[in-house]
Amino acid sequence: MSHSEETSEFSIDKAAAPLPLRNSNMGQSSLDDAPRMELLSPPLEEEQLAWSKIRSYCQDFFSEFLGTMTLILFGDGVVAQVVLSGGTKGDYQSISWGWGIAVMLGVYVGGKSGGHLNPAVTFANCLYRGHPWRKLPVYALAQLLGAMTGAAIVYANYKSAFDAFEGGAGIRTVTGPTATAGVFCTYPAAFMTRTGMFFSEFIASSILMFCIFALADPNNIGAGNLMPLCLFFLIFGIGACFGWETGYAINLARDFGPRLVSFMIGYGHEVWSAGGYYFWIPMVAPFCGCAFGGFLYDVFIFTGNSPINTPMLGLQRLMRPRKSVWSNTHPAAIENKV
Amino acid sequence: MSHSEETSEFSIDKAAAPLPLRNSNMGQSSLDDAPRMELLSPPLEEEQLAWSKIRSYCQDFFSEFLGTMTLILFGDGVVAQVVLSGGTKGDYQSISWGWGIAVMLGVYVGGKSGGHLNPAVTFANCLYRGHPWRKLPVYALAQLLGAMTGAAIVYANYKSAFDAFEGGAGIRTVTGPTATAGVFCTYPAAFMTRTGMFFSEFIASSILMFCIFALADPNNIGAGNLMPLCLFFLIFGIGACFGWETGYAINLARDFGPRLVSFMIGYGHEVWSAGGYYFWIPMVAPFCGCAFGGFLYDVFIFTGNSPINTPMLGLQRLMRPRKSVWSNTHPAAIENKV
Amino acid sequence: MSHSEETSEFSIDKAAAPLPLRNSNMGQSSLDDAPRMELLSPPLEEEQLAWSKIRSYCQDFFSEFLGTMTLILFGDGVVAQVVLSGGTKGDYQSISWGWGIAVMLGVYVGGKSGGHLNPAVTFANCLYRGHPWRKLPVYALAQLLGAMTGAAIVYANYKSAFDAFEGGAGIRTVTGPTATAGVFCTYPAAFMTRTGMFFSEFIASSILMFCIFALADPNNIGAGNLMPLCLFFLIFGIGACFGWETGYAINLARDFGPRLVSFMIGYGHEVWSAGGYYFWIPMVAPFCGCAFGGFLYDVFIFTGNSPINTPMLGLQRLMRPRKSVWSNTHPAAIENKV
Amino acid sequence: MSHSEETSEFSIDKAAAPLPLRNSNMGQSSLDDAPRMELLSPPLEEEQLAWSKIRSYCQDFFSEFLGTMTLILFGDGVVAQVVLSGGTKGDYQSISWGWGIAVMLGVYVGGKSGGHLNPAVTFANCLYRGHPWRKLPVYALAQLLGAMTGAAIVYANYKSAFDAFEGGAGIRTVTGPTATAGVFCTYPAAFMTRTGMFFSEFIASSILMFCIFALADPNNIGAGNLMPLCLFFLIFGIGACFGWETGYAINLARDFGPRLVSFMIGYGHEVWSAGGYYFWIPMVAPFCGCAFGGFLYDVFIFTGNSPINTPMLGLQRLMRPRKSVWSNTHPAAIENKV
Repeated sequence: MSHSEETSEFSIDKAAAPLPLRNSNMGQSSLDDAPRMELLSPPLEEEQLAWSKIRSYCQDFFSEFLGTMTLILFGDGVVAQVVLSGGTKGDYQSISWGWGIAVMLGVYVGGKSGGHLNPAVTFANCLYRGHPWRKLPVYALAQLLGAMTGAAIVYANYKSAFDAFEGGAGIRTVTGPTATAGVFCTYPAAFMTRTGMFFSEFIASSILMFCIFALADPNNIGAGNLMPLCLFFLIFGIGACFGWETGYAINLARDFGPRLVSFMIGYGHEVWSAGGYYFWIPMVAPFCGCAFGGFLYDVFIFTGNSPINTPMLGLQRLMRPRKSVWSNTHPAAIENKV
Repeated sequence: MSHSEETSEFSIDKAAAPLPLRNSNMGQSSLDDAPRMELLSPPLEEEQLAWSKIRSYCQDFFSEFLGTMTLILFGDGVVAQVVLSGGTKGDYQSISWGWGIAVMLGVYVGGKSGGHLNPAVTFANCLYRGHPWRKLPVYALAQLLGAMTGAAIVYANYKSAFDAFEGGAGIRTVTGPTATAGVFCTYPAAFMTRTGMFFSEFIASSILMFCIFALADPNNIGAGNLMPLCLFFLIFGIGACFGWETGYAINLARDFGPRLVSFMIGYGHEVWSAGGYYFWIPMVAPFCGCAFGGFLYDVFIFTGNSPINTPMLGLQRLMRPRKSVWSNTHPAAIENKV
Repeated sequence: MSHSEETSEFSIDKAAAPLPLRNSNMGQSSLDDAPRMELLSPPLEEEQLAWSKIRSYCQDFFSEFLGTMTLILFGDGVVAQVVLSGGTKGDYQSISWGWGIAVMLGVYVGGKSGGHLNPAVTFANCLYRGHPWRKLPVYALAQLLGAMTGAAIVYANYKSAFDAFEGGAGIRTVTGPTATAGVFCTYPAAFMTRTGMFFSEFIASSILMFCIFALADPNNIGAGNLMPLCLFFLIFGIGACFGWETGYAINLARDFGPRLVSFMIGYGHEVWSAGGYYFWIPMVAPFCGCAFGGFLYDVFIFTGNSPINTPMLGLQRLMRPRKSVWSNTHPAAIENKV
Repeated sequence: MSHSEETSEFSIDKAAAPLPLRNSNMGQSSLDDAPRMELLSPPLEEEQLAWSKIRSYCQDFFSEFLGTMTLILFGDGVVAQVVLSGGTKGDYQSISWGWGIAVMLGVYVGGKSGGHLNPAVTFANCLYRGHPWRKLPVYALAQLLGAMTGAAIVYANYKSAFDAFEGGAGIRTVTGPTATAGVFCTYPAAFMTRTGMFFSEFIASSILMFCIFALADPNNIGAGNLMPLCLFFLIFGIGACFGWETGYAINLARDFGPRLVSFMIGYGHEVWSAGGYYFWIPMVAPFCGCAFGGFLYDVFIFTGNSPINTPMLGLQRLMRPRKSVWSNTHPAAIENKV
């Protein structure tokens, strides 16, 4: 990433519509504007510090990386504690709590980049909220690596407990009475059909995105500075209401990252083959679900800046695959918006 | 619905007293006024978009529809998960959590129309807070259809689990060891008398409305922007304290809508006959309860705009059944208020 | 209560230091000042309404009555549900939740009078925060009657369930396998000594008052508009941490009111004799505890208006039992404060 | 502590960067500035009161003492209730709740001194946020004594219950079926290696500090006035996700203070020797963890005033062990910052 490119990206980002999660601060303009302002014109002494420059260029990467790491630390951590203690140090409701808190704290940590923590959320923001498409791969990579780091730390922390639970230092099983692979990533319930799996992930992701857009909509009630708290309730709710069948992955980074780590640790090929090669479903379904959930909200409720609120519900775009139409950062596209 | 009619309704609505739930935003005037303002005078380009016009006219309908759909998605979803997993993926407290979150998120989603989500709440708002009577049927229809849609989605999502729990694809039972009808709507506990059922629903609805008016009262402490969060606690509390005997339906749309869906699915005539044709109680009692709860609050605490705070506690109205007295949108009535 | 007396009381109350719970609104001056302002100078039309006048004079009574009624509705309601359902519709944690929500909603309902809901809290406010002493009996009476009303409604609601649980319509037992007296008021654990009972209630009340003063202190962090939410956590915490031994009554009205009701219902003399005539402990200990807890906070942390922050820690008062010294509403006392 | 010394300390403290926890109030400037202002220039009458002067000088000590006492009252209280009632008055989740509420209320109580409640948090604030080093021993002593006082009160409150559970008045055991030493301080799970213990405490402390800095960062989303509430969720999360192996002491004062008390009570030498002389790990690991967690946040996200944001990441300091470089209160150091 060259310097000039990044600078231009930041200035464009400022011109484009603000990211939904950042909207949550709109009542507190000082909090919201301060970080961007500082990034654009940091204090003199910082300008001269090499690391501060690097950090400024990589802010999005670091922010998403550490936010997603926090997400997985708490999320996989609570599953590890409940599973490995045989349910004596928590139960299913603890897991709902843990994941809810994980998202809440992850968003606080990763707030400077919008706290997406989820490639599908970033994708929906690119589609509907003018988030620059060129940032999608950066965000997705940071999220994936952050999730892997978090899962590795959880494993390191609970290594003795894994050994004690599985009955030996080298044993790691995906199925069976002492299976522990569920600590890292999700596996579907036994009775599920493949269509059912996909639909379950699809609907949970739709609800996720639909509700995030509702909470972030400044023309609706809006969560304001309660946004991270509301996300706690949202994730808790999805876990309590739609979390049984496929474990509400609803996030490529959250599921695929730790799954990779569990494969490296030595759980074997079964991490891929379990549930009839279920692993691809939480990679694909969240993108479809988030796109659909965001579409639903924008069509029926949202009155702000969105491609849906352009002629023909933005479907013209499909007929004009030109950069000036699709790019959220292209000068022409921005002019049209202003 | 013709264009001119709707426009006049909106302008009248602005003149009338604000709806209680909208009051929750009063500390954030920008959030509160913005949506209405935009509806009345949308940006130029939106004016020319056919869909934006339609959406603007049907805003109340869409908003209540999607809000109530969200309510039922989470509410029936959590019961489905707890019942169908045999209590391994949640317990009674999960259900309290689920319904609390359901209302909280439903209100965030349906904020543009006030987030009533309940015909009885709309009714009490018409009675005591100047909500236009002509909107009552629109709201009630939207709420009912939204609840039915939500219940259908929950059923589609958990279809395999229903089959597995009931022991076969076609089997759906209202009573018995593997009964699953309770996922959709409420059934009374076995020991209840009919009077007890009615009283239980009546008192829960009274408390609901009494507390909503307290939370929304700008002359009291008032929940302000914590309103949806407080509603979470309120619903959780009603579930934990008055939820056993009849399942705290306290909402025609929440109970009758999913009950209709369960009848369509094939649960048979028993959905109506169970509990001694109990089904009509959660249709009638909430209206009585909400009217009474709102009356209680307005008589003893509320000092704002309410018929109770007019000569003879507003009982003159009963003797003057004229449109200028009863209609919240009639020009004469509004002049009296100002 | 004559008209002129009440009017002077109100104006004096305004001059005196504000009540702690009202402080919670200090960030929202409009919410805080509005109700008093309206009471002092209500809109013209209200001035002419007989009921509005009566309500204005009895505001404190109505507010505390309904607030405490709400407290007991949820508080006794949750115990009833958990006990009578045999633990299938809630567990000990549900009770912590229920009482926490009960206080939270009770404070929202009774906000206009400060939301004390507890004679001991009113007492400590009179001692340390300039709440008029002459209001103490009015508040205490309202709280007691409100608690009794709430307990009676809970009983009416769960009557069939009482009968089913006790095994017959006329049977009501205080001890034994199907005892239900604990629904109404608290009874100590079997192993407790009398000193232990008193100390347990004393320490829980001290913590209650100490934390309320901390939360309401505008010179500390202060809970601001989160006050009712923080009270939820405080009551939940006291229930989870100090609730086992004597059931954390910490409130004369909450314990004695429902106990009276249970005596009237027919639980017999045992409601008084149980636990070695334990019933007087939750009547006396809360006053001692709240006085001590408030003393602790004012001595070591509080820097605002308090008798502790007068010469000799306010102990001079004990040597000068004159009205001008003790009365919070006496003109001389107020002049000294200003 | 002489008068002049303390006065200078306060004025320096004001010049230095504000403590992170105090930052939480930044949206409410009146709340944040008021206490300091009052300390520096108290009202005239207070100036003349001996006790107000003493309290003003010892504000930090009293504040941390009472804050940590509150922390241990709720924290050890909830463990006592759950353990001594044999799990009938709470379960593992209650303990998560109890400790979360304990920290939340402790921070509200100890807000005037920043609400650190933990020597390791004070240490990290000295390292990264300009908290005066000379205050570290005062804070640590106050925290330790506060924790001991809290533990003693909990013991006094539950003495009968200890006797009943252990089976006799003089019996107090650290291990075995009726062990109760876990009420006071943490003991590791049986399967843990010493490295595992240290790592578990280290990682939990890192997460604690990392998240506190994220929540308190005004350039990130920031918790604002929700700070104590967010700390509730953070502590709950650490308890639910990393609380099993070593009981998440993450605090010298919280663990060593009550351990000393339990030794005095008569639990014998085993309180030190249990777990292979585990007791030193929660004394050392939190300092390492908090230092690392704070480092991580400042390196990758924080853009405000921190030694990390000086040339060479502040490592120059290590080569210049002079007072002007290290002291946060040295005039030269402050000049450099301004």
